[in-house]
Amino acid sequence: MAQHSNRQWILKKRPVGDIADDDLVIETTPIPTAGDGEVVLRTHYLSLDPTNRIWMSDMVQYMPPVALNTAMRGAVMGEVVESRSPAYQIGDQVMGLATWSDYCCVPAANLQLCPQLPGIPVKEVFGIYTIVGPTAYFGVVDIGQPKVGETLVVSGAAGAVGALVGQIAKTMGCRVVGIAGGKDKCKMIVDELGFDAAIDYKAQDVDAQLRTLCPGGVDIYFDNVGGDILDAVLGQMNLFGRVIVCGLISGYNADGRVPGPKNYGNILMKRLKVQGFIVLDYIPRYAEAYRALTQWHSQGKLKWNLHEVEGLENAVQAVRMLYTGGNHGKLMVKVA
Amino acid sequence: MAQHSNRQWILKKRPVGDIADDDLVIETTPIPTAGDGEVVLRTHYLSLDPTNRIWMSDMVQYMPPVALNTAMRGAVMGEVVESRSPAYQIGDQVMGLATWSDYCCVPAANLQLCPQLPGIPVKEVFGIYTIVGPTAYFGVVDIGQPKVGETLVVSGAAGAVGALVGQIAKTMGCRVVGIAGGKDKCKMIVDELGFDAAIDYKAQDVDAQLRTLCPGGVDIYFDNVGGDILDAVLGQMNLFGRVIVCGLISGYNADGRVPGPKNYGNILMKRLKVQGFIVLDYIPRYAEAYRALTQWHSQGKLKWNLHEVEGLENAVQAVRMLYTGGNHGKLMVKVA
Repeated sequence: MAQHSNRQWILKKRPVGDIADDDLVIETTPIPTAGDGEVVLRTHYLSLDPTNRIWMSDMVQYMPPVALNTAMRGAVMGEVVESRSPAYQIGDQVMGLATWSDYCCVPAANLQLCPQLPGIPVKEVFGIYTIVGPTAYFGVVDIGQPKVGETLVVSGAAGAVGALVGQIAKTMGCRVVGIAGGKDKCKMIVDELGFDAAIDYKAQDVDAQLRTLCPGGVDIYFDNVGGDILDAVLGQMNLFGRVIVCGLISGYNADGRVPGPKNYGNILMKRLKVQGFIVLDYIPRYAEAYRALTQWHSQGKLKWNLHEVEGLENAVQAVRMLYTGGNHGKLMVKVA
Repeated sequence: MAQHSNRQWILKKRPVGDIADDDLVIETTPIPTAGDGEVVLRTHYLSLDPTNRIWMSDMVQYMPPVALNTAMRGAVMGEVVESRSPAYQIGDQVMGLATWSDYCCVPAANLQLCPQLPGIPVKEVFGIYTIVGPTAYFGVVDIGQPKVGETLVVSGAAGAVGALVGQIAKTMGCRVVGIAGGKDKCKMIVDELGFDAAIDYKAQDVDAQLRTLCPGGVDIYFDNVGGDILDAVLGQMNLFGRVIVCGLISGYNADGRVPGPKNYGNILMKRLKVQGFIVLDYIPRYAEAYRALTQWHSQGKLKWNLHEVEGLENAVQAVRMLYTGGNHGKLMVKVA
């Protein structure tokens, strides 16, 4: 499937609210050539993640936003087709932050070889072990510090991170309640993933359901969404509870700044620890997450699903799914 | 000054907004007598603290609110005049949570002997070492975890806790900026207490002043106030910053729930740790705070000031000062 030109998604405008059709456009350029210390890779997969929407905006964020009129940034897996770095040879399977393009020219230092994990296909290594797996692992283990018998609530529970969070917490002895949108997703996280209970935020009163399903209160809240759901859970937190601020997806599409949680005062009254984290800070400790995830997966305690969309040209359409709840599992685009 | 009747401040109504004159009234009753395991003390001093206003309300809080038509709760120091507990003898100087009364009848388990600290008068032991000193100490040391050269900002900086916070942080090698109301207080914390800089929130743009005075950002924020000042500081926090949620005084007098911080999203983007605490959780570790405070005080690194109001009948008038900024130093009422 080699081709002689290179399609790139270019960020033309910063989205206001939902991503519009003309915010990003495909432009075709020659296939790049590597400069000194650089590598050109043929993209096999893009990982699509809620953070992509952050990078398109100019909100305060954890790395510089994508500059207008440049290629959209993304986590990419591919095969080295040209190398001017001693670190990589043609044919190596690599991954790292690159661009939404058929071919990416990247400094060798921004890449790593795809880890070889026994029994895990390389696209699952990329889809699960690069971002979402370590995010769930370090969020729960390092910040949540769960104790056996505690109650953990996770929002975005049917999403790629949330599904792993719940399963990891179950494995560590917690009672787990997931909040997701729609009956099917709620059924899936209970029946297939083993959550203790689910709340359908689209059809149910989250506050009332929390009181019913967590009569002893909430010890750990893994937050992927922010907004009203955050407020509802903050209101039910137990003394010395932990809130893991992993995502605030309800606000990323917002036009303007969103209000803060009205129940912020509970941080004081209940002596909560509310801690934000970005998984990139944990890269030096990834081996620990890889070991745990692989072990639990081999024991059947950790399941995941990839949701593959075919074709680079469908990347923007696909990323919108993360905001409509259209994806079922870790969202990836198969490029070649 | 012995008297033959006992005046008590009774909570008649829950204040809405500022404390009204008829929310608490003085009632006169006979001097109580001790039941089994109880002690009667003659009150010498009340400690007035912002948390008193919380206890008057029925907001979600860290201990039960004061019941209507009962005596107002407060931290009290006094002398034992009757004891039916082997733990205390007549004449002992004791302190603990009791009521705003001339005489308090208290279970012995709720009291402790006033610690004897070399060179510290007993009313300072009560005023500084019971609540505000350990609050400042554990907040800065345990939650703030300051490193030499970091920048700490404290709100309510001229208040009893804030003044100690800044001095402790200076002693630990931080650059310290205090936020206080009025030129005199700002001058005092810089000239007398050694803060590096001050921001007068009543006269200056806090956001702009923070940018000017903390060009390298804020590593630690010790929050006593919440509200708009919290939002301004959240906007200037550095990566991995710590926010110590000690008080949210701007909201205690509010009529209804106050909005949450608009900059809540920075908790994620800057990977902040926002942690609430109540000093009562640290009582098992008080000896550590006592040692540090006493040593720093003896070295001249830690100054404090008591603001004494004369007469139990002035307690309500006095507690309002905490909300108008009328007090200069740790606020206490001298009862007898």
